[in-house]
Amino acid sequence: MTHHRSLQEILKAVHSGKMTVNDAVHHLKGLPYENLGYAKIDHHRGLRTGFPEVVFCQGKTSEQVTDILKRLSSKNPVVLATRADENVYKDVAKVIPHAAYNKDARMIVIRDPKHALNPQKDAGYILVVSAGTADIPVAEEAALTAESMGSRVERVYDVGVAGIHRLLDQKEMLDNANVVVVVAGMEGALASVVGGLVSKPVVAVPTSIGYGASFQGLAALLSMLNTCAEGVAVVNIDNGFGAGYFAHLINR
Amino acid sequence: MTHHRSLQEILKAVHSGKMTVNDAVHHLKGLPYENLGYAKIDHHRGLRTGFPEVVFCQGKTSEQVTDILKRLSSKNPVVLATRADENVYKDVAKVIPHAAYNKDARMIVIRDPKHALNPQKDAGYILVVSAGTADIPVAEEAALTAESMGSRVERVYDVGVAGIHRLLDQKEMLDNANVVVVVAGMEGALASVVGGLVSKPVVAVPTSIGYGASFQGLAALLSMLNTCAEGVAVVNIDNGFGAGYFAHLINR
Amino acid sequence: MTHHRSLQEILKAVHSGKMTVNDAVHHLKGLPYENLGYAKIDHHRGLRTGFPEVVFCQGKTSEQVTDILKRLSSKNPVVLATRADENVYKDVAKVIPHAAYNKDARMIVIRDPKHALNPQKDAGYILVVSAGTADIPVAEEAALTAESMGSRVERVYDVGVAGIHRLLDQKEMLDNANVVVVVAGMEGALASVVGGLVSKPVVAVPTSIGYGASFQGLAALLSMLNTCAEGVAVVNIDNGFGAGYFAHLINR
Amino acid sequence: MTHHRSLQEILKAVHSGKMTVNDAVHHLKGLPYENLGYAKIDHHRGLRTGFPEVVFCQGKTSEQVTDILKRLSSKNPVVLATRADENVYKDVAKVIPHAAYNKDARMIVIRDPKHALNPQKDAGYILVVSAGTADIPVAEEAALTAESMGSRVERVYDVGVAGIHRLLDQKEMLDNANVVVVVAGMEGALASVVGGLVSKPVVAVPTSIGYGASFQGLAALLSMLNTCAEGVAVVNIDNGFGAGYFAHLINR
Amino acid sequence: MTHHRSLQEILKAVHSGKMTVNDAVHHLKGLPYENLGYAKIDHHRGLRTGFPEVVFCQGKTSEQVTDILKRLSSKNPVVLATRADENVYKDVAKVIPHAAYNKDARMIVIRDPKHALNPQKDAGYILVVSAGTADIPVAEEAALTAESMGSRVERVYDVGVAGIHRLLDQKEMLDNANVVVVVAGMEGALASVVGGLVSKPVVAVPTSIGYGASFQGLAALLSMLNTCAEGVAVVNIDNGFGAGYFAHLINR
Amino acid sequence: MTHHRSLQEILKAVHSGKMTVNDAVHHLKGLPYENLGYAKIDHHRGLRTGFPEVVFCQGKTSEQVTDILKRLSSKNPVVLATRADENVYKDVAKVIPHAAYNKDARMIVIRDPKHALNPQKDAGYILVVSAGTADIPVAEEAALTAESMGSRVERVYDVGVAGIHRLLDQKEMLDNANVVVVVAGMEGALASVVGGLVSKPVVAVPTSIGYGASFQGLAALLSMLNTCAEGVAVVNIDNGFGAGYFAHLINR
Amino acid sequence: MTHHRSLQEILKAVHSGKMTVNDAVHHLKGLPYENLGYAKIDHHRGLRTGFPEVVFCQGKTSEQVTDILKRLSSKNPVVLATRADENVYKDVAKVIPHAAYNKDARMIVIRDPKHALNPQKDAGYILVVSAGTADIPVAEEAALTAESMGSRVERVYDVGVAGIHRLLDQKEMLDNANVVVVVAGMEGALASVVGGLVSKPVVAVPTSIGYGASFQGLAALLSMLNTCAEGVAVVNIDNGFGAGYFAHLINR
Amino acid sequence: MTHHRSLQEILKAVHSGKMTVNDAVHHLKGLPYENLGYAKIDHHRGLRTGFPEVVFCQGKTSEQVTDILKRLSSKNPVVLATRADENVYKDVAKVIPHAAYNKDARMIVIRDPKHALNPQKDAGYILVVSAGTADIPVAEEAALTAESMGSRVERVYDVGVAGIHRLLDQKEMLDNANVVVVVAGMEGALASVVGGLVSKPVVAVPTSIGYGASFQGLAALLSMLNTCAEGVAVVNIDNGFGAGYFAHLINR
Repeated sequence: MTHHRSLQEILKAVHSGKMTVNDAVHHLKGLPYENLGYAKIDHHRGLRTGFPEVVFCQGKTSEQVTDILKRLSSKNPVVLATRADENVYKDVAKVIPHAAYNKDARMIVIRDPKHALNPQKDAGYILVVSAGTADIPVAEEAALTAESMGSRVERVYDVGVAGIHRLLDQKEMLDNANVVVVVAGMEGALASVVGGLVSKPVVAVPTSIGYGASFQGLAALLSMLNTCAEGVAVVNIDNGFGAGYFAHLINR
Repeated sequence: MTHHRSLQEILKAVHSGKMTVNDAVHHLKGLPYENLGYAKIDHHRGLRTGFPEVVFCQGKTSEQVTDILKRLSSKNPVVLATRADENVYKDVAKVIPHAAYNKDARMIVIRDPKHALNPQKDAGYILVVSAGTADIPVAEEAALTAESMGSRVERVYDVGVAGIHRLLDQKEMLDNANVVVVVAGMEGALASVVGGLVSKPVVAVPTSIGYGASFQGLAALLSMLNTCAEGVAVVNIDNGFGAGYFAHLINR
Repeated sequence: MTHHRSLQEILKAVHSGKMTVNDAVHHLKGLPYENLGYAKIDHHRGLRTGFPEVVFCQGKTSEQVTDILKRLSSKNPVVLATRADENVYKDVAKVIPHAAYNKDARMIVIRDPKHALNPQKDAGYILVVSAGTADIPVAEEAALTAESMGSRVERVYDVGVAGIHRLLDQKEMLDNANVVVVVAGMEGALASVVGGLVSKPVVAVPTSIGYGASFQGLAALLSMLNTCAEGVAVVNIDNGFGAGYFAHLINR
Repeated sequence: MTHHRSLQEILKAVHSGKMTVNDAVHHLKGLPYENLGYAKIDHHRGLRTGFPEVVFCQGKTSEQVTDILKRLSSKNPVVLATRADENVYKDVAKVIPHAAYNKDARMIVIRDPKHALNPQKDAGYILVVSAGTADIPVAEEAALTAESMGSRVERVYDVGVAGIHRLLDQKEMLDNANVVVVVAGMEGALASVVGGLVSKPVVAVPTSIGYGASFQGLAALLSMLNTCAEGVAVVNIDNGFGAGYFAHLINR
Repeated sequence: MTHHRSLQEILKAVHSGKMTVNDAVHHLKGLPYENLGYAKIDHHRGLRTGFPEVVFCQGKTSEQVTDILKRLSSKNPVVLATRADENVYKDVAKVIPHAAYNKDARMIVIRDPKHALNPQKDAGYILVVSAGTADIPVAEEAALTAESMGSRVERVYDVGVAGIHRLLDQKEMLDNANVVVVVAGMEGALASVVGGLVSKPVVAVPTSIGYGASFQGLAALLSMLNTCAEGVAVVNIDNGFGAGYFAHLINR
Repeated sequence: MTHHRSLQEILKAVHSGKMTVNDAVHHLKGLPYENLGYAKIDHHRGLRTGFPEVVFCQGKTSEQVTDILKRLSSKNPVVLATRADENVYKDVAKVIPHAAYNKDARMIVIRDPKHALNPQKDAGYILVVSAGTADIPVAEEAALTAESMGSRVERVYDVGVAGIHRLLDQKEMLDNANVVVVVAGMEGALASVVGGLVSKPVVAVPTSIGYGASFQGLAALLSMLNTCAEGVAVVNIDNGFGAGYFAHLINR
Repeated sequence: MTHHRSLQEILKAVHSGKMTVNDAVHHLKGLPYENLGYAKIDHHRGLRTGFPEVVFCQGKTSEQVTDILKRLSSKNPVVLATRADENVYKDVAKVIPHAAYNKDARMIVIRDPKHALNPQKDAGYILVVSAGTADIPVAEEAALTAESMGSRVERVYDVGVAGIHRLLDQKEMLDNANVVVVVAGMEGALASVVGGLVSKPVVAVPTSIGYGASFQGLAALLSMLNTCAEGVAVVNIDNGFGAGYFAHLINR
Repeated sequence: MTHHRSLQEILKAVHSGKMTVNDAVHHLKGLPYENLGYAKIDHHRGLRTGFPEVVFCQGKTSEQVTDILKRLSSKNPVVLATRADENVYKDVAKVIPHAAYNKDARMIVIRDPKHALNPQKDAGYILVVSAGTADIPVAEEAALTAESMGSRVERVYDVGVAGIHRLLDQKEMLDNANVVVVVAGMEGALASVVGGLVSKPVVAVPTSIGYGASFQGLAALLSMLNTCAEGVAVVNIDNGFGAGYFAHLINR
């Protein structure tokens, strides 16, 4: 994998004649992605950012998703696809039989059987907290993403602030987490309350759950951005994947 | 005060000849307001809605405010003016010496000395709760309004959700109130948390305190409108007066 | 029901040896909610806020709604579910035969037959006023909610301000109400007009009825928040339930 | 004033030799505006639209305003300048001594003394109605504009819907108007109520009076656009001039 | 039709004993609307505003529309229903055979055969101008409304500003109209251009035609409200009915 | 084609008697468009702006599109229709057999076989760059538009900034383009990065690809308008056609 | 510090008689905050969240800030105040002579001289990256916050994407950071580009730098929330403090 | 200037021993910008994009602007600074005596006297068109930018669509331009009308001129983005500089 050589190594190889000028040009310019025409699969991303490209299925045909996943899974131990509906999964499963589907999270996970992931039970964990039952799909997307990347994840669901004792009961669970993901729609107040209770980073995910003046999640988004608690950062509305990914980077 | 007679009484008086047609026309048409040209002072409002017209000073000249207050206070035991800056008060005080000014709430209160207001110590009370120090002017506007109308008011300030124990400490105070006014800027989460704790009506007042994506109080407003707690209603941004007035109507 | 004991009572019991430390920990920590995994049913809410948790059906599966209602109705004389479509009701009715459905309001009401609710005819009432025919579903949600909680409710529908005599005709009905719920879409002006006519609290519900620059109820919402009338507070767009609940808290 | 000749007249004159080709080109192309470099004064507008160009002073220097007014007033019996602060007027008055200034409306009116305007007392009139005292400047801008153009104008101020009897009292005044201009800030409900009372066109002017969720007049604007009353059209926020102009076109 | 008597006449009748007190109460209070429970049909509106209530079908059931139309058409020579889809019309036509349907405008017109409407060919006319082919449904709603009310209407369609010669060609048509209705989506510039060309009132109707940053007609709406041309007023997005109604009030 | 004669030529002809007054009026007034009633086909546009009218199919019936295309294609070598779904194309193809359809771009292209378009391989080219796979339909609309007008177009797809090496690899392609069209949804950052790399005009097209706080393309639109790079201009969300057209005007 | 005892310890002490019931009530209820009336200083926060309360000066009087800082600094080794203008600092410095002021960041830092903070040179660091010179105040607020909390911070300023080589040059600095804070106004694209380059968490801070359609930072905020890069979370507009705090929690 | 060598040349030089590895690393990595700490001056930009970095003065101190300009002008024949107020200019002029200031455009232009710019009179020109007098500052910013870069610029001001003959009069000027910059506030309709008249690219600049529902230029911006004319692209509100720069890239 020459693309790991440093600039200096390549130049030294050129200088010593071990590498031709043309090869050097190729190495310096040719970063390892695969060109499917409609998509440029970024095999290099795993090396660069620690995890392979994740396929966002919305707006892609079933064929495109299948094709991209086939190529990604041939070179990576774990591959994820988000916002995948069940039909897409069925098409993928025909070609990649060990692909698994999580209906709640609408995610496809393809894990190389040789790379089983067994996070130790006493590993530091990410806590995913959701305000209501309807927020669970987004919460599961976050949880599954982080788990697929190798983090231990714990879940506490339906602890919205309207019955704050349900949340306070989980104080120990909150205190021991390395990072907390808070998933909430409507007014999104849960992020502020959790942020005030813990000393760890809180990743807030507004959801589009609500109606009327929630404006498809805008109310929760603004609420979380304006939190009076410290130690809270926010991702896009319904972006469970982004929160899980970000939380894993911290937990790692 | 003929304007209290019912339609039937007036018609009977006409029928019996006790009232001329012209007088009846006058009674039926002429509702008792006073026309200053630039303003029509609604002396009837006290009878109709239980409290005289309140003067919103913003956008009125000092002369206009003084003139209107003079006329209102001649016919009502208590008169209020909101959003009054100190200069307006000084002009008013020259003409109405017993006018009092509350700088925090930016309000002028004119109380007929013969109508001292002494709510009993054990009367049911309105609790005004504020999230932060900067929300106090709006909270005071609410408290002073309700007090001027005759309600007993208690205050609990600076109990934002980022340190929720400060709020939980006030559980007894919250439980015993007849109605709670919650004043909060930034993400306005306090309204939801209080709403989940009490069984009494909560009147939420978003404030413009905050910056960036608070958009001058929009974030708190949307948050409060989308509260997951039941029993919460909302007034305009920074509308302490409206909340105090509304709370008094409930507490009365 | 030990969860009603005060902190002091529990501590005294511990002190006197009547309660073990472990039991006390349990009492102090273990608030009575039931954990279904995807939902934490808050049986305590009835005690805390005066009415059991209300099930918001939108975003929940038919199974989840049925399961939650079964558990709630086993411990509460009256249970409500809002935003329930007819199919959900049919599934619920299979398991809870005495569940009733109101199609206009899209609500399921489950009332323990032993707790018949007969508000006296001369009880103080909530008046629900709607501007147009299309606002009736939201108005009915408000009315039915308050009735289910035990309030007497009167209705005046289709009295929008474009024909103000229809409203003025109801002056007596308005004057005698304890609290008025005003339901209006389009420009929502009815809330201001009613607010100017009565001396009781007005709970305004903007609806999403309208088109174009109504922006799904935003116009009515902003209109109601900016009302020039005093004594008006606002709930979320189309939130008939919230208005009925709030009105009942006042009327109670 | 050859620019009034029809195309056919000009072509006939060319055909008959009474007009040279060059003159015809000039006539057909050269519309009569005066080029000051920074502004092209449209002397033709009076003929085209019935009233000369009106100078919007905001964003123009005092010199520019004076210069434009001097030229316009030399060719037109009545010239208006809107959004003029008092300093601009003082500069204008040095050069055009008979220029008059209306402080409320922030307008300069220059009327050729030979063209005194005396609308007959019994002429059809425009009624300008304002909701509050603070809306008067915009209302006066509307009234003065229409008067300057030759319409008879009547005024009814401070009749907001919170005290609807003040408005109903003016029923006769409303019924007899040819067109009604309604000026209101806050929630702007007055336009709907007036629209429901009269059978004449209602021109609604939202004002920026209000605070918080009025968003500088947006609430009133949306309210007026979504009015449930028929026969209402709307102009820009604070656009008294536009409403007065439009009303005059109808009244004419 | 006693409801036409003036207050004074009624009072005189009471005084002279020609009318009993009870009858007078009835006359003064009982304005003539018909209460269907879900709707209060305003038979009085025809007298008050010059045209009977128009039925806005959106959000009403087919049964409700039919019922209301039956009652309205029994007392009025012309009745309109807007936003009616074809199925609603079919239901109406079963009961009111002479009901007519205009598919473009989505309107039902019910005209009493005895009141044929024949506006004279040389009557002053309303000109309805549309920018594009896709704006025609809204334009037709405007045109048909005004025609149903008795105005002569002329149409000029597809004259958007991108090919301004198509508009300039219609200069004579524009000049001779009493009032011009301009219907345009996208950027709505046509209203400004027409406003600059004519000396008559221009009623601008933004449409939701467009995509992306048109935000369902918001771009056209804002454009029309900010027009640099004088003599333009605006109605709600897609509100062809409102524009036609307003134009007829002017043209009448 | 008399409509190409200058004003002076026509006037000279009138003067010399070679043209009658009536003919001249016709020439001067009658610009060459064809009136279908619902549409005014602008045959003159090709002469005026360099390319015939392009048919925007959205909101037009299949019959209207077919009819307009038939007439346009009879007088122009190349005719385009955008936002055409496949069914519309099938109807068009029955009547215009050589009409071609591009499914990605949802465009119909009708090219007169006698006017084959063969841009030379070494002609200056427009480079169309897209950020993601889901942006390709909009990118293809841009590319196909410019190609249909005669420009050479090159494509570089799926080079979003999250893997910037994929873009940097295309530096040479970027450097040699005459103009670059950048198509990107989500945060639209690609426009700024490309703008910083090249010295040629960049036409940015925000797309509606994204979710949550992308608000249907608003995020990308605002991002592109606020670009810190110089030499970037923006078209409407999803307006591939507009970008391709604009790029061709530059490249020409 | 009894407030660290567990619930069980306290109960055991009560049981054994070592603690009276009253003391236990006090311990369980009385969390250690200090009540100034207008503010409740949360001395407990340091223990709960790892850092004492930070004073947000905006909206507080100079006296209030000084008072709060005096009390906080008496119990904490490091105390911060944000959004402090220079006059506030001068007042504070009179009372707390070792208070330091950073003009760029508008922050007051009060550090107990006995607790000097010397992060080791080879400690893991937070990298603060800013797009433009005008973003530096926000970037400095982030950097100073994290430094005050004990993190090592490195800075790379003025590396906006319009000249991407300036950023790519810092690749090594980026690769070696534990967490990257990206501060950018205008279109905020820098967050996406950095997010694509690094494998560490990126905390994005939109700033209000820009004009026109930046809408005071909204464009950058939306851009960052919609980033196509993974591993990016966002804080409020101009919230340098929040980003620095959050980054320190990760880096710790 | 080694930074112009291609990658291949450098590698060949390394291969042949003409360049050391260290020198090559330097060349490949070290792009020529100058690091002032608070700013990284991009001397390379002139080579990369054809024009040196332009200094946006807003948010920079007078010292920073002066310092950056001094360095830029030492290496470039023409340097621009935008949004410079007069005081900044005065500071700059002390150090760079030949710096010139244009008050209308608020720009500083520094031109090396040896590089006088004399565009030929018959060169292709950019036409800058403005709608109103108040738009001139933005128009001048566009014009001056393009002139400074070497383009010939013509100006046509105050030709808003309300008097369309003023624009049509300039048809020849429009037809002969290579590119047209349209500057307009309020409803921004001028861009569409010009776009329909010419066959050249139109760069539209919305301005913040207007009030009320113009929302600081949003109305004009949306209007221009939704133009029904082809061949129009848009820059940020008030971004005269961006439009002039973009136009020059086309005209070049």
